[in-house]
Amino acid sequence: MEIIRSNFKDNLNKVYEAIEEADFLAIDGEFSGISDGPSVSTLTNGFDTPEERYQKLKKHSMDFLLFQFGLCSFKYDHTEAKYIMKSFNFYIFPKPFNRSSPDVKFVCQSSSIDFLANQGFDFNKVFRNGIPYLNQEEERQLREQYDERRSQANGAGTLSYISPNATKCPVTIPEDQKKFIERVVEQIEDLIQNEENKNLQLEPSIPGIIYLCHYCFQKERYIVISKVDEEERKRREQQKQAKEQEELSDAVGFSRVIHAIANSGKLVVGHNMLLDVMHTIHQFYCPLPEVSGLVSLQVIYKILLDTKLMASTQPFKEIINNTSLAELEKRLKEIPFNPPEVESAEGFPSYDTASEQLHEAGYDAYITGLCFISMANYLGSFLSPPKNHVSARSKLIEPFFNKLFLMRVMDIPYLNLEGPDLQPKRDHVLHVTFPKEWKTSDLYQLFSAFGNIQVSWIDDTSAFVSLSQPEQVQIGNQAVLCRGATRLL
Amino acid sequence: MEIIRSNFKDNLNKVYEAIEEADFLAIDGEFSGISDGPSVSTLTNGFDTPEERYQKLKKHSMDFLLFQFGLCSFKYDHTEAKYIMKSFNFYIFPKPFNRSSPDVKFVCQSSSIDFLANQGFDFNKVFRNGIPYLNQEEERQLREQYDERRSQANGAGTLSYISPNATKCPVTIPEDQKKFIERVVEQIEDLIQNEENKNLQLEPSIPGIIYLCHYCFQKERYIVISKVDEEERKRREQQKQAKEQEELSDAVGFSRVIHAIANSGKLVVGHNMLLDVMHTIHQFYCPLPEVSGLVSLQVIYKILLDTKLMASTQPFKEIINNTSLAELEKRLKEIPFNPPEVESAEGFPSYDTASEQLHEAGYDAYITGLCFISMANYLGSFLSPPKNHVSARSKLIEPFFNKLFLMRVMDIPYLNLEGPDLQPKRDHVLHVTFPKEWKTSDLYQLFSAFGNIQVSWIDDTSAFVSLSQPEQVQIGNQAVLCRGATRLL
Repeated sequence: MEIIRSNFKDNLNKVYEAIEEADFLAIDGEFSGISDGPSVSTLTNGFDTPEERYQKLKKHSMDFLLFQFGLCSFKYDHTEAKYIMKSFNFYIFPKPFNRSSPDVKFVCQSSSIDFLANQGFDFNKVFRNGIPYLNQEEERQLREQYDERRSQANGAGTLSYISPNATKCPVTIPEDQKKFIERVVEQIEDLIQNEENKNLQLEPSIPGIIYLCHYCFQKERYIVISKVDEEERKRREQQKQAKEQEELSDAVGFSRVIHAIANSGKLVVGHNMLLDVMHTIHQFYCPLPEVSGLVSLQVIYKILLDTKLMASTQPFKEIINNTSLAELEKRLKEIPFNPPEVESAEGFPSYDTASEQLHEAGYDAYITGLCFISMANYLGSFLSPPKNHVSARSKLIEPFFNKLFLMRVMDIPYLNLEGPDLQPKRDHVLHVTFPKEWKTSDLYQLFSAFGNIQVSWIDDTSAFVSLSQPEQVQIGNQAVLCRGATRLL
Repeated sequence: MEIIRSNFKDNLNKVYEAIEEADFLAIDGEFSGISDGPSVSTLTNGFDTPEERYQKLKKHSMDFLLFQFGLCSFKYDHTEAKYIMKSFNFYIFPKPFNRSSPDVKFVCQSSSIDFLANQGFDFNKVFRNGIPYLNQEEERQLREQYDERRSQANGAGTLSYISPNATKCPVTIPEDQKKFIERVVEQIEDLIQNEENKNLQLEPSIPGIIYLCHYCFQKERYIVISKVDEEERKRREQQKQAKEQEELSDAVGFSRVIHAIANSGKLVVGHNMLLDVMHTIHQFYCPLPEVSGLVSLQVIYKILLDTKLMASTQPFKEIINNTSLAELEKRLKEIPFNPPEVESAEGFPSYDTASEQLHEAGYDAYITGLCFISMANYLGSFLSPPKNHVSARSKLIEPFFNKLFLMRVMDIPYLNLEGPDLQPKRDHVLHVTFPKEWKTSDLYQLFSAFGNIQVSWIDDTSAFVSLSQPEQVQIGNQAVLCRGATRLL
């Protein structure tokens, strides 16, 4: 189901209901870019520690916009022995809601934009009809603004254009506007004395009105003065408060969906989801913490499961060659796996996995959910007696909880949210520096005596080189020294 | 005429012709944002010097993307006594053209994007079909890349994966790929010995092919080996060079239009055009110079004329109240002005000024041209005998050349590209610092004894306050000191 600004409020309860009833949720995000500085190969160096990777993504990936969010809820129907699925594809854009609202700047990376354009991504839908959002701090500030304005309005009698500490004398009226002001005073006196008249719209003398409106909050430059009794005043006050409350809700916008996910505490499944998790926290919730780990990254998601990590781990590792989402989804339909029984809920459109709509966030979330179900059920085949259905609450899948896949890291498969990260031995890894003209081929050439090596570029003049045998390091080190390169690790 | 990536090459000669024959050109750009830091009121402080303003725009406005460019050529037809107009509306996007091309990052400001969205701006057209471009330095680098590749290819015999300085021994073939390589060697030997066969497509054994392709430039991972004689080799070489030349032209893309404007030396008219001028130089030509002025900003545009400045200057100043483009265009149809006689050239669509398409760059360029014609012709009414038509080459309009309007600057109307900037007296201007809780109202209150004042905010805790009479500064200064604020200017 496609959700844009104009149908967001009408469908919010459907979203809440889907989250509430779900056994698990699957998510996916599309961003306006990946790296604002280093090349992707430098951003994802093969020997990053989980902490280093997190810091790099925090520094170089967070100024991009998450502008499409896919949410898919899966609820198991025991009688029918199948999952009922509800999918939502949200378009998101930080439309300023009034003159004092944050004017968000975000970066676009042309390769990412071009990639999405080739997938048929609808940028007009994002920019014209994206749902706005506020993080917690912006929401708090906006609430304060409303409160302050209300308390100012209630402190009747105080001229609002004199600050609380200033002497309460009237401002000097410029010579050229005196006539206009005098006429206004006359008209107001008339209004007060005349029982018949309830309203007075001031004549649109532009310079005068601008002067009077200097501190008004209205955008339109006209002023209507009305006589109201106490009851009417209260009614208007309440009306205004209700309207403000609604404006506030509208401004919080899509973040309300994120709050609902956070409050549900449900299992949230994603594919290669580290960036999705970081972006949703950063954009819709609060600044990312300095240090990653359990407490800090689980402000929104209590239990996470990364299908790319799951597919790269035993017992799947040996029977799954390619863990990219599209390939994984295909592989998991074949023996020894079973394609999961999943049906769209009534009133929800269904996706056809035969005609791929890859990189639409809603579709990607959907097939991520399918992959999770297939893999979870496969774990049931090891039980005696075997089980066809393994639920999202089963102990069997707990080993995969809260471990996020680390792209291209050679020897640390995941960032662990629930404990210390793995510390692999790196005896066989050399840190090599060299002239900036060197290419990968020069490194292969340098280490040609050592058989298979792996090169992870750090920058123009350094790289990690991993030898296949730790005992080769001594010799490798000598080779490096002979060629004018230096070893540091 | 709408120009996108797919019809750019077919229409480029029309663009060149239009520029070549024109009496003058009008331009306009649409950007993805205005300021990446300060608020617009801080970016355009009322007491900026031209140099300060230029530096601020250079620092805070250049990371946005100019993604729509309007170009309108006007050619006077003396027999018919009317202008013939050709308008082009270009969509522009830095689509990466290959894997080593610059991956441009640009900033979007949500208020600007939202503004354009409300005007019906087509973002899909920009991102899916925008014309690419290169600045001069990027073009030079790409040309070098092609040259280097060609000289490498011609140095036949050298294995390309061995760097020039390395010992020329073959690389070690990893154990698991030996079989594949051996089979390839066999197949190649067969190909050489067998007269019949001309081509050999290697079997797609993925790991082996990747190994062989490690330094190939092809994106597709297959290899075809062909036997060719010398003649065929030369033919293929020439074919390849022609293809490379075309690729290079395609990559330079929209910048070719800018080069044509630069080479024409024609009068280029814009409305409030400082940002347009800066963006076109920065994006399509070269980095903006440290200092503004004649030499540096006129790398593209030899003669510029800003219709907003013209409308704000004698003899127009007194009879034109509102110099915003839309209002100016309306005003210049009324007495004492004459709506200009302008007709679209054959095969070019015409704009209807009655149904406004404001903020489409092509349309804005068009009505900017209309405004210029009306104002230029009005100058002819002062001649004796009066002239109805004043050409773009007339001495009458020279006083307006190369002076760019400065937004919101109180006492310096323009940035002068041809000489020193104006140095107005600023005796009556106070620099005031104060606690950050202060609002404009507090400043009005503080200076209430001085009648009309003008406040130009610098940041949260300082502003310029301009008194209407220089002789009041002494007293004003005292008032400031009494209230704990300080005067610095």
